Amino acid sequence: MTAIDRRFTFNFMVNSTQPSLDRTFSALADPTRRALLARLGEQDGLSVSALARPFAMSLPAVMKHLDVLSDAGLITRTKTGRTVSCRLSAGPMEEAMSWLAHYQQFWSGSLDRLAALLERD
Amino acid sequence: MTAIDRRFTFNFMVNSTQPSLDRTFSALADPTRRALLARLGEQDGLSVSALARPFAMSLPAVMKHLDVLSDAGLITRTKTGRTVSCRLSAGPMEEAMSWLAHYQQFWSGSLDRLAALLERD
Repeated sequence: MTAIDRRFTFNFMVNSTQPSLDRTFSALADPTRRALLARLGEQDGLSVSALARPFAMSLPAVMKHLDVLSDAGLITRTKTGRTVSCRLSAGPMEEAMSWLAHYQQFWSGSLDRLAALLERD
Repeated sequence: MTAIDRRFTFNFMVNSTQPSLDRTFSALADPTRRALLARLGEQDGLSVSALARPFAMSLPAVMKHLDVLSDAGLITRTKTGRTVSCRLSAGPMEEAMSWLAHYQQFWSGSLDRLAALLERD
């Protein structure tokens, strides 16, 4: 192992203990929360009630999921009068993606498919 | 909303309910499990005891984390005689990264930084 490898190892072990990554990955581990983010990805700045509409669950249940997303920094909520609107805050996803990017050498054909994804948007 | 937008929405909502993504993100939400993957990323095919050595926890505790990683398809375990060796299986990470890639338009400067990460490896 070279000195560069050792530094990489050290940095990597330190990076593995980031509490923000715990919160981000944990928030993303639920299908309803991913679907809420997907909705905000299509239409940003939705009110909580508009955001909750397509989901077959109570408003308080949706609001609990929004709390988790907010705690992870994945959404921001702004109150205007009696309306709370939600916006996507994708910063933590970038951190998660950077973490995953370290491993792209371990899956085959990844660069081509990822490049295709990035070019599509 | 155009027909293409609607199809995208439909696909996206369907993709949000992938149980494999639940397992992957949930497995990645723990710092010990990320550090275990980091170690396998540097040195693949380690025995369970060699893998567990730097961690300040019991072997059974490490083995529980390995169970979670294995259930998520992030590692494979092979038994040779009395030795179980672990290998990284990065496929689920690719799926997670593809999911996150949909959002790269929402964070600033992402393409430059991601391109730099991809080029570095």
